[in-house]
Amino acid sequence: MAILRQGGASRALSASFKRLSASPSARNAFIQGSARQAAAVSSARMASTYYTGEPEAPIVKTDIPGPKSQEKITKLTKVFDTRSINMLADYTKSFGNYIVDPDGNTLLDVYAQIASIPLGYNNPALIKEAKSSEMISSLINRPALGNFPSHDWAEILETGILKVAPKGLNQVFTAMAGSDANETAYKAAFMYRRQRDRGGPAVEFTEEEMESVMNNQSPGASELSILSFKSAFHGRLFGSLSTTRSKAIHKLDIPAFDWPQATFPLLKYPLDKYAEENARAEADSLAEVERLITSYHVPPCAVVVEPIQSEGGDNHASPEFFRGLRTLTEKHGVLLIVDEVQTGVGATGKFWAHEHWDLPSPPDIVTFSKKAQTAGYYFGDPALRPNKPYRQFNTWMGDPARALLFRAIVEETERLDLVRRTAQVGDYLFGKLEALAAKYPGQFENLRGKGRGTFIAFDNPRRDDFLKKAKTFGINIGGSGPSAVRLRPMLIFEEQHADILLEALEKIVTTW
Amino acid sequence: MAILRQGGASRALSASFKRLSASPSARNAFIQGSARQAAAVSSARMASTYYTGEPEAPIVKTDIPGPKSQEKITKLTKVFDTRSINMLADYTKSFGNYIVDPDGNTLLDVYAQIASIPLGYNNPALIKEAKSSEMISSLINRPALGNFPSHDWAEILETGILKVAPKGLNQVFTAMAGSDANETAYKAAFMYRRQRDRGGPAVEFTEEEMESVMNNQSPGASELSILSFKSAFHGRLFGSLSTTRSKAIHKLDIPAFDWPQATFPLLKYPLDKYAEENARAEADSLAEVERLITSYHVPPCAVVVEPIQSEGGDNHASPEFFRGLRTLTEKHGVLLIVDEVQTGVGATGKFWAHEHWDLPSPPDIVTFSKKAQTAGYYFGDPALRPNKPYRQFNTWMGDPARALLFRAIVEETERLDLVRRTAQVGDYLFGKLEALAAKYPGQFENLRGKGRGTFIAFDNPRRDDFLKKAKTFGINIGGSGPSAVRLRPMLIFEEQHADILLEALEKIVTTW
Repeated sequence: MAILRQGGASRALSASFKRLSASPSARNAFIQGSARQAAAVSSARMASTYYTGEPEAPIVKTDIPGPKSQEKITKLTKVFDTRSINMLADYTKSFGNYIVDPDGNTLLDVYAQIASIPLGYNNPALIKEAKSSEMISSLINRPALGNFPSHDWAEILETGILKVAPKGLNQVFTAMAGSDANETAYKAAFMYRRQRDRGGPAVEFTEEEMESVMNNQSPGASELSILSFKSAFHGRLFGSLSTTRSKAIHKLDIPAFDWPQATFPLLKYPLDKYAEENARAEADSLAEVERLITSYHVPPCAVVVEPIQSEGGDNHASPEFFRGLRTLTEKHGVLLIVDEVQTGVGATGKFWAHEHWDLPSPPDIVTFSKKAQTAGYYFGDPALRPNKPYRQFNTWMGDPARALLFRAIVEETERLDLVRRTAQVGDYLFGKLEALAAKYPGQFENLRGKGRGTFIAFDNPRRDDFLKKAKTFGINIGGSGPSAVRLRPMLIFEEQHADILLEALEKIVTTW
Repeated sequence: MAILRQGGASRALSASFKRLSASPSARNAFIQGSARQAAAVSSARMASTYYTGEPEAPIVKTDIPGPKSQEKITKLTKVFDTRSINMLADYTKSFGNYIVDPDGNTLLDVYAQIASIPLGYNNPALIKEAKSSEMISSLINRPALGNFPSHDWAEILETGILKVAPKGLNQVFTAMAGSDANETAYKAAFMYRRQRDRGGPAVEFTEEEMESVMNNQSPGASELSILSFKSAFHGRLFGSLSTTRSKAIHKLDIPAFDWPQATFPLLKYPLDKYAEENARAEADSLAEVERLITSYHVPPCAVVVEPIQSEGGDNHASPEFFRGLRTLTEKHGVLLIVDEVQTGVGATGKFWAHEHWDLPSPPDIVTFSKKAQTAGYYFGDPALRPNKPYRQFNTWMGDPARALLFRAIVEETERLDLVRRTAQVGDYLFGKLEALAAKYPGQFENLRGKGRGTFIAFDNPRRDDFLKKAKTFGINIGGSGPSAVRLRPMLIFEEQHADILLEALEKIVTTW
């Protein structure tokens, strides 16, 4: 077992962190060689290809939380709600794929801040970016982007956020996080639909619209909806929460819009065994979507969907299903919004998960956040810019400092070919998990995510215990939905990390 | 007139910027002496007390936008909606109170990124903070705060955000910007009220609640409301937009909740002349609030109010009015949420504008953003923490990097005594504006903000032209509401800057 307990390795580890953070040229510590070389290697004892000095294995020194963490949590509880704390972290000591806590516990992190760390902790390339004069200026001279963009904003967008824009979508509206990215996308959809119904961008608002909207009434406030799917998660502000259908605890007591939901196809695994049944579930789902689009009493102007329902438990559907959804929404003149907040930026083995679908035409809108470290929505149709200025606007409209960070993330991802590598590592990991699932029936149920990079999940009947126990074996891992264990490693997760993970997973299910 | 046209001063200016940004100890450029000394000085030619090398006057070289800006705007338009652009800025060259554009135009900035820059462009103390290893780590190791806070998060909160917490409110929920700060505050209010109605935190949700909420229906989704005021602005996401009543263009086509609005007292100026009428308007407003609280068909669980309605046109009400609102909300068990997104962090001559009111008991919730450079809501009552974890939660829950920046802003504001100085400078400016208003009847109408620091506004019948013309005299200034010119200088705005501003304002109204 590759986990060290109370080991002396932690001192050496700290030393290498210090060296890295002290050195201004820490980026040089990155191995420059082709990532392809690493693919052949699979020793659990091999360190990271990308990080010099990354731990070779987890180190578990204390219970988690240990005494030092406990003390700090007690202090924090006075001013901050700590009931949702998973573990306290010392980010100055965390490195690469490993998260370190104040007690010196060093865990292989396959949860990665709820799937939002792309390139590892204290990544040298990002340190370099953070130290740049451009970043410093962006951080302290934060503009009201819609009014006073910087002279180089076009260039920052084009070399960063827009460089990785999904095919067919060459425009972006920047936002702060997943929730407001989705909500501003919804706003664009409402304005687009009403403009079309009104007869085009040149048609002026009526007096009645102008007056009624100030009272939050129609016709000024539209009586349209966004259609989402059961088990979906799209955020927790009032509009996004109205499309979120993950768990009651996310929604209770909060007023919601009367918007419709369709059943997401509930696939059975293994897929090849249930092919016919699954195809029927998908056809039923599409039929329900069509029925709701054409007959729901608050007509949908858009359908929002995750490529893989993540918070809802890693629920997949086939590319055929999504192609059907694209065809259906186009047929009825309803926008298709693909929420790539959790699936975007490489983890599925494509930069955007919807690239797996081979759609007949691009989605109308794609939203992003998390691993992008910034947020927003992409679109292509110029008509999705509202017909007048100040309709889609707010003070900050995103954050140029975070846009610079995303640009550095994109550069590093491309330089190291990390999306293709993630596809490879995912295939390796999935194969090994299939073997584990066969060896321990009932423990790795409904294994899913084949061909979707490291975006893999399975169900375990004692899921909550499973997650807790993982920490004792040196793994930080997350759950979702009622019983899923979801793997959300970073893009620098390699075969040797997979081996450590697999060893720990086996330990968990053999030591109940 | 203290405006240089095509002057040679711009070269000297660039040199001083370079020196400051190149030097790691740029903070030393700050004059360390007491701010009190500066108060006696009022020469328009005197440079900043705080910034060595700040321009002594605006420089207008070209039309705005000039040729270089035009070229860049044309490029930006391809990927970004530029119809709301006020002017392009070069933030690497902007300094202190002055914003510089790509054509070298150097404007005294009394708009300050829609009231969100607290301490001037390229502030040396903030540069120092941006370069700190703590900031670099926060920027590149962004945590999911609710799950994995850093070991020093309590300390960062206590020495920063919570150090300036409004009296009586010792807790904070961190957010990203004003809109989600308000929306999470609303969510807290809904959960608080339902919990009370349900019989306390220990009472479990019913099956009916758990099921209905997944369909966005009551009783799980509450049928409660947030009461706001006419002309209010609280943000543009779906919940906050339902409380925003500023302009139709902000709201058109977006679905809204059926929430009530009360008339904000429409004060007449000068206040002493209309004392009786104004008192009646305030009494009427309070009576309307009470009527809506007790009889609106979607019962309010909270009243949200800005200390000064900012986007709505700088509408003031008296401390008596706000004391009445506090008494009234307490009487009916409705929360009082004070939205200090624009008024907070010193501009009114108190750190929080509601400190001017001498309330019988603190507001229940105070929201903040803009000059804090981060966002969130303060509260005091522990019952405002929802009864279970994950009810108020999201992935990032704010941004520790921005929390560090706010801490540095607080330290610098205290070190230079800038809140008290802003009160002084505001008094000076208001007095001079009164004289201008008397000299040019009809041009500076309804002058307001006396005793509220530099948070001053007036109406002009040709407001939009007024704002455009200001640029030709070297001033960047904003409007709000139907006809208001609003002054939103930074906290480093001094008497000498006020003199430059006043001279320009006089030029504007004498050269129509």
